[in-house]
Amino acid sequence: MVGVAVLGCGRIGQIHARNLARHRRARLVSVFDVRAEAAAPTAAELGVPAARSVEEVLADAEVAAVLIATPTDTHVPLITAAVKAGKAVLCEKPVDLDIKRARACWAEIAHRKPSVMIGFNRRFDPSFRALRERLQRGEIGTLELAVITSRDPAPPPPAYLKGSGGLLRDMTIHDFDMARYLAGDIAEVQAFGANLVDPDIGKLGDIDTCTVALRSAAGALVQISNSRRCAYGYDQRIEVFGAQGMLQAGNLRATSVEHWGSERTAARDPVLDFFLERYRQAYESELNAFVAAFEEGRPMTPDFGDGLAALRLAEAAEESLLTRRAVDVGG
Amino acid sequence: MVGVAVLGCGRIGQIHARNLARHRRARLVSVFDVRAEAAAPTAAELGVPAARSVEEVLADAEVAAVLIATPTDTHVPLITAAVKAGKAVLCEKPVDLDIKRARACWAEIAHRKPSVMIGFNRRFDPSFRALRERLQRGEIGTLELAVITSRDPAPPPPAYLKGSGGLLRDMTIHDFDMARYLAGDIAEVQAFGANLVDPDIGKLGDIDTCTVALRSAAGALVQISNSRRCAYGYDQRIEVFGAQGMLQAGNLRATSVEHWGSERTAARDPVLDFFLERYRQAYESELNAFVAAFEEGRPMTPDFGDGLAALRLAEAAEESLLTRRAVDVGG
Amino acid sequence: MVGVAVLGCGRIGQIHARNLARHRRARLVSVFDVRAEAAAPTAAELGVPAARSVEEVLADAEVAAVLIATPTDTHVPLITAAVKAGKAVLCEKPVDLDIKRARACWAEIAHRKPSVMIGFNRRFDPSFRALRERLQRGEIGTLELAVITSRDPAPPPPAYLKGSGGLLRDMTIHDFDMARYLAGDIAEVQAFGANLVDPDIGKLGDIDTCTVALRSAAGALVQISNSRRCAYGYDQRIEVFGAQGMLQAGNLRATSVEHWGSERTAARDPVLDFFLERYRQAYESELNAFVAAFEEGRPMTPDFGDGLAALRLAEAAEESLLTRRAVDVGG
Amino acid sequence: MVGVAVLGCGRIGQIHARNLARHRRARLVSVFDVRAEAAAPTAAELGVPAARSVEEVLADAEVAAVLIATPTDTHVPLITAAVKAGKAVLCEKPVDLDIKRARACWAEIAHRKPSVMIGFNRRFDPSFRALRERLQRGEIGTLELAVITSRDPAPPPPAYLKGSGGLLRDMTIHDFDMARYLAGDIAEVQAFGANLVDPDIGKLGDIDTCTVALRSAAGALVQISNSRRCAYGYDQRIEVFGAQGMLQAGNLRATSVEHWGSERTAARDPVLDFFLERYRQAYESELNAFVAAFEEGRPMTPDFGDGLAALRLAEAAEESLLTRRAVDVGG
Repeated sequence: MVGVAVLGCGRIGQIHARNLARHRRARLVSVFDVRAEAAAPTAAELGVPAARSVEEVLADAEVAAVLIATPTDTHVPLITAAVKAGKAVLCEKPVDLDIKRARACWAEIAHRKPSVMIGFNRRFDPSFRALRERLQRGEIGTLELAVITSRDPAPPPPAYLKGSGGLLRDMTIHDFDMARYLAGDIAEVQAFGANLVDPDIGKLGDIDTCTVALRSAAGALVQISNSRRCAYGYDQRIEVFGAQGMLQAGNLRATSVEHWGSERTAARDPVLDFFLERYRQAYESELNAFVAAFEEGRPMTPDFGDGLAALRLAEAAEESLLTRRAVDVGG
Repeated sequence: MVGVAVLGCGRIGQIHARNLARHRRARLVSVFDVRAEAAAPTAAELGVPAARSVEEVLADAEVAAVLIATPTDTHVPLITAAVKAGKAVLCEKPVDLDIKRARACWAEIAHRKPSVMIGFNRRFDPSFRALRERLQRGEIGTLELAVITSRDPAPPPPAYLKGSGGLLRDMTIHDFDMARYLAGDIAEVQAFGANLVDPDIGKLGDIDTCTVALRSAAGALVQISNSRRCAYGYDQRIEVFGAQGMLQAGNLRATSVEHWGSERTAARDPVLDFFLERYRQAYESELNAFVAAFEEGRPMTPDFGDGLAALRLAEAAEESLLTRRAVDVGG
Repeated sequence: MVGVAVLGCGRIGQIHARNLARHRRARLVSVFDVRAEAAAPTAAELGVPAARSVEEVLADAEVAAVLIATPTDTHVPLITAAVKAGKAVLCEKPVDLDIKRARACWAEIAHRKPSVMIGFNRRFDPSFRALRERLQRGEIGTLELAVITSRDPAPPPPAYLKGSGGLLRDMTIHDFDMARYLAGDIAEVQAFGANLVDPDIGKLGDIDTCTVALRSAAGALVQISNSRRCAYGYDQRIEVFGAQGMLQAGNLRATSVEHWGSERTAARDPVLDFFLERYRQAYESELNAFVAAFEEGRPMTPDFGDGLAALRLAEAAEESLLTRRAVDVGG
Repeated sequence: MVGVAVLGCGRIGQIHARNLARHRRARLVSVFDVRAEAAAPTAAELGVPAARSVEEVLADAEVAAVLIATPTDTHVPLITAAVKAGKAVLCEKPVDLDIKRARACWAEIAHRKPSVMIGFNRRFDPSFRALRERLQRGEIGTLELAVITSRDPAPPPPAYLKGSGGLLRDMTIHDFDMARYLAGDIAEVQAFGANLVDPDIGKLGDIDTCTVALRSAAGALVQISNSRRCAYGYDQRIEVFGAQGMLQAGNLRATSVEHWGSERTAARDPVLDFFLERYRQAYESELNAFVAAFEEGRPMTPDFGDGLAALRLAEAAEESLLTRRAVDVGG
């Protein structure tokens, strides 16, 4: 049993805390949130103490690992402190909005050979995972083309958007990681961005719609498209293509019911919406992977380097938007 | 090239006449309808004479075969006359509403070893045909269960219903033939009928909804269900099940377009509606089979015996409705 | 919080025990199995005592409700004893194989107005439940035709089959309940049975394949088909049809992955297999419904009467097999 | 009735000739091929003369329109000659491989206000056409993102490839036209190319796999992906996305049959393969549109300008491959 504390009791923190509370191989030791009133209900619901400070958490010998689900700008100091305190870390994505800061963090902790896992939850989605395993088993031959579709149901509130780092670092970051998960290292990036969903997003200097093309070091091409708004729910799809065929992983729905009527047939439910629902199983599996790697002393995946690599792709895509050039990211 | 005359210029007759007019191995010689004004437009459209009488057609040496698409009560006399005149015959289903009359017809013509094909068009539907071929190739093992769904878009007009012979002889007859096509000879029949669609149908002593269960001589079970009305179009589906799996043949639509919106996803078009559209390819293939069998001197399938057998099942199902018993049809 | 004891620690009992152990409004008090070695692992896993006898369970004031997951022939005595001890009961289906014994049980306990729920888990499947709610909301008009497909992945072991009461009481019983859930009271039953899967099942005097047709009191027709073996998994589907359209609820799969290759396209995973997987959510929802009804003092559904009614339909279907007649079950 | 001659009796020319031979409003007057032995079988099959020269065709007063299905490098001279002879023209895509030559052609004929239609057949595919009509009706709001997938079953023979103008001018040209059909004028182009399918294609200096991103003048983003080889057939799909939802148009198959077995379920046929099959209806509709526009004196669509615009996009995409920059195509 690994003792875990959860830092940050927002939506994601709560999910992780609940999953820990009923985990067979982990034990939720405590929860913490800078706003004590945010931590209290989760602590009460799950019957664990709400720590008064990060220091208290890190000083707790029962706590072998921390799960960081706090705002992005606290990730780097919390990872650093936790690693220095000898804790394993599962940190939500992204490591940081600023790749320099993220690299500096790694420079500071790397010599400790820390156990740090970054929360790219989609790698643990059963359908995406099965797709990748079948791809790697050679079911369609070597990867030649991948198409990653990711559309959020609705834009986040303006306050969130301001500190989000922009579409590419906040939302596409998942797709950059997925591209690496499927195609390996990336060599080259092209992007187009647009402000089509909400003019207020444009006023923030951000985009809400984009297409990105990547070329992998091994030669495969990857297409990503994103929108901050999707009428039919949280659209999350992957398609991979090779010499022997294609694998697709599609959206999920709450039921299998189809409606056949005079105007349309075989109509299905809207797709699961939003990430807490869509990736419910992924969050469980991610935690299982973290706990298992910890207990068995195995390397954690995706690791800090994966976090850096996704951030590097976001930065390169931004550069492509500005320069209107393809950007090399190799080496 | 086989010269063919079409008797009856209603919807089905027109389809056949047009298919003949552009057939590579057949030639449309003439068309006939007791109502001269019904024959005229088809004759003009296709550039062939409208014969003045059946006798004229049968006396025409250019006419090697007749296609009978007239009202059901004329099928028996027209088949008889055509066979006596040495013509091959493709006759729309059913042979007759009265199995005794149909048997008497056969008794009268059988010694001539006539070339008679009965128009069970669904046997020529590409999907149903492929399903049967794959069943017969053993793709799912021996047939154990078949489910045949057949629902018309809307009830026919009252005038038609009166002379239709009732749901089982008029509509289910196709499904009885399909059951035989898939499962071979039938041994036992059970049926339930209901009047749920239109009370006027009940007033005619008819039903508009039914379920039928059949047991084949080889031991397989078959379920049929019918309705005279279907909001989403002409519902025509088949499912066959065996030890190694299942094959399904579904409905067809005009396009492959799917709509994803806030209330429903993956919504497709209504299904093709009605038989002229749904079975367009089947009518062409049926004609090809007839022409090929004629030219190559091969037996025609489905033949007069198949017409009798389907009628026998309709009669048995009616008996089951009345007696509330399973009815033996073997032997 | 309702204290619950689980009687019977087989596969189903374990599922219920685990669901109770993490339930927010219920508490697992103890487990019991006549074979102490069967109860021990579940007790250990969930940290509750293994009771030494039913009497000990029923005497425990902490136990407000019992969940009966023991062999069928013990259901009646256990329900009776539990009700007499003032406990609420959730009992797995069927109540008994012998409808007389089941009725006698009810006669003995009815005056106590007991809280008894029968475990027809499929009523709690999210897809089937949504289909029924949409049917009842009038989305397709009044029900006219329902088609229920139920195929097990593989026959149970011979030892189980011997005491199973036969296909109709053991397996079709679920479909009889589903027919009532969708169509209300049933008036008339017809059935065909066959021994196609395994000759050893025939030697036991049992069937392994069947079709059943039902007519509801309200006039709708229902078709059921069953097989004891299904190559592609646990096939569980429902289709309902009315004047305004059709609703279908289909099978579930572990992932959304589709494979497109040179021989076939859009190929999906086998379907979830078997009931523990397919109805995982249904078992949770069933327990929620039981706990909620208990806590809020509301009537339990499906209740003892529903258990009797399904059994009555199984009996009628058996009679139809023997007499080859439609059997009235009204009144 | 419009009299039409077909120039070029290869696969596409034969399709058009056959469609003309049975057209209700057009008459096939003659066929021509520089290789007389190529024209002879089509002429014989359809009962029309094989002209001895283009001059003979253009001098024929019966010929009101010519259908140009010859090799690409003859398009410009044939269009020019036909227009000068006062004929309407339906010319296969592309107008030419060299946009300067194509522009010069237009400069020479424009003052005649010629009736020239370019054979972008996909605009006439019933599914793509329905998708666009629904898009334009506003079913999903204004277009924001489009995804166009186009994969050929197998690379053409080396001889064809050499003169093909390369992937972007030969194959992607269809997708460029489709992008314009859906999104209107295009402002900006980015592309990645790769040689993954066959090293021999790379030796020709060509690519066989590509991704292209376009930005429309109205602000929508479009993604195209292409491969010269596809194991499961001719993959032709379109997806359009807007504020109110998404429309998808998918692949077509010969039958509706699904196979359910122990390893996979709901497996469908390979998709229709190749363009003669997949776009059979499109070729018919294209011809109908040409004939109707001619007879009714209406402008032809897609016209010469559309041909130039698609070529301009191919050229811009090539420039993007070379310069690794986004290329402006506006104005």
